[in-house]
Amino acid sequence: EEPVVAMPTVSRVAVCGGTHGNELAGIYLVREMLKKRADGTEPVSVVTVMSNPRAAQLCVRYVETDLNRCFTRAALSAPVSETSPYEMIRSQELNALLGPKASAQAVDLLCDLHNTTANTGLCLITYSDRDWICLHICKHLQFPYMLDICYAKAYLCPTSVSISMEIGPQPHGVVRSVIFSAMQEGVQLMMDWICQFNSGTLFEGGWVDVYTMVKNIDYPRDSETHVITAAVHPNLQDRDFCLLHPGDPMFLCFSGETLRYRGKEALYPFFINEGAYYEKGVALSLARKRRVQIPSQHTLGLLDY
Amino acid sequence: EEPVVAMPTVSRVAVCGGTHGNELAGIYLVREMLKKRADGTEPVSVVTVMSNPRAAQLCVRYVETDLNRCFTRAALSAPVSETSPYEMIRSQELNALLGPKASAQAVDLLCDLHNTTANTGLCLITYSDRDWICLHICKHLQFPYMLDICYAKAYLCPTSVSISMEIGPQPHGVVRSVIFSAMQEGVQLMMDWICQFNSGTLFEGGWVDVYTMVKNIDYPRDSETHVITAAVHPNLQDRDFCLLHPGDPMFLCFSGETLRYRGKEALYPFFINEGAYYEKGVALSLARKRRVQIPSQHTLGLLDY
Repeated sequence: EEPVVAMPTVSRVAVCGGTHGNELAGIYLVREMLKKRADGTEPVSVVTVMSNPRAAQLCVRYVETDLNRCFTRAALSAPVSETSPYEMIRSQELNALLGPKASAQAVDLLCDLHNTTANTGLCLITYSDRDWICLHICKHLQFPYMLDICYAKAYLCPTSVSISMEIGPQPHGVVRSVIFSAMQEGVQLMMDWICQFNSGTLFEGGWVDVYTMVKNIDYPRDSETHVITAAVHPNLQDRDFCLLHPGDPMFLCFSGETLRYRGKEALYPFFINEGAYYEKGVALSLARKRRVQIPSQHTLGLLDY
Repeated sequence: EEPVVAMPTVSRVAVCGGTHGNELAGIYLVREMLKKRADGTEPVSVVTVMSNPRAAQLCVRYVETDLNRCFTRAALSAPVSETSPYEMIRSQELNALLGPKASAQAVDLLCDLHNTTANTGLCLITYSDRDWICLHICKHLQFPYMLDICYAKAYLCPTSVSISMEIGPQPHGVVRSVIFSAMQEGVQLMMDWICQFNSGTLFEGGWVDVYTMVKNIDYPRDSETHVITAAVHPNLQDRDFCLLHPGDPMFLCFSGETLRYRGKEALYPFFINEGAYYEKGVALSLARKRRVQIPSQHTLGLLDY
């Protein structure tokens, strides 16, 4: 017989937008959600948060430093003053509101809304392959699931069940109706799943494809000036999650030369040509795909403990 | 017999990129052109200019104010000091380098390279329907031709033959290989035309479609907060230069409601959902299409004057 895992209900949920202030779909979705005042009849308590209101006001990714790199334990416990970078102060405010990180007071599930200029469609990013709630949501919603082991400790994740909902392609500083609607539907489907789960529905286990980040690839650069000398090759642009084989075209230099993928292992590219990552030296990331088995799952309350 | 207009040769050309510092195709094209030192054998003298190097360095549209609104006669003659906005100082530097505006010392033709998040393809923008050189280039290259009577006086246009080459869709802060290549080819075709023209080729006259700006349409906004309450409707998004009829869907509110075009005249939308125009209160512009007749044209030098 298949194992069944019993989990606590997901009673308190946070939905955050504007962690990056120029990713407009999440910002407008949060504003729309904030208009609808809770009337106490909701099956789940949802806290809706504009993560970086100053950056959203200015329509920039961040004011002083990337908020989504400010949630390390070190950053959250550092002393801050009025002269600290705004995002350092704000990360501690958010941690107090939604956490404290990894404490019993933290919300049960956090969904942080993001956009990308890359053609990722809607995918979920988290930092553990043991987050069976996240994996069940992915399986149920049939979204690609990405495991980011590099930055996740610095992300807005007060609780172990923290999901970044990433959707693209959309230029930063722009909201496209189909992207907004897809994100709105994604959040609604996630809330529907949580309600079903809380009401005792048994979710069957099975296999979920998980993309695990292997490495980042930078743009080719001039050795002296460090200026970028090539764009992502047209054959690779917009092919997020399509297998990249050794020898496949990777960059097309502005001078006309094609540069190829020189790795020995076929890997899955994602965040291809993401605008915000030029400054981080990342033209694309590469992932390995593997299948993770998840157990059937329902809430604790309905078992005879 | 058809009239033939004789024009002076186009001896001195300027190609400018980075007038907006986050429009990367022109920035990388100008950097590429600057690598190739002139060796004196070029048939046309080309000055290549990075218009707003500080904004390009920061990858922002502008540092203090939009450079492409700083070329009015008033702005160009205003006294400046070290405390003036950077772009006010830079516009006067560019006017000295490439102009002075409308003087005999000005370059003969200026091509200013721009990107847009809108799906315009490659099109040329100028401010007079008597610029027969521009119209001949459009006819020859078969690019849409747009007449912008609103802002053109403020644009970077030291000479009467000033063309903005606009290409999209491309997110700001991102360079896409196909967009870069199309711009590179567009500039090359323009240079080829100029060389042919200078060497005496007769270009046949005919009719050119010209889009003349009629009005701008803002996003629907909350009457109190002025926050945007709708995105461009999916049926209109990416349909630049496709006729918009009265009653056609124009916006889809975040709440789900469709708003329709309430004008009485079918018009051609362009710059649909351009990222930089959110702050200017422009969701799209509407144009009337008309046909302009242009005469056959060749250089002065070859006629028996």
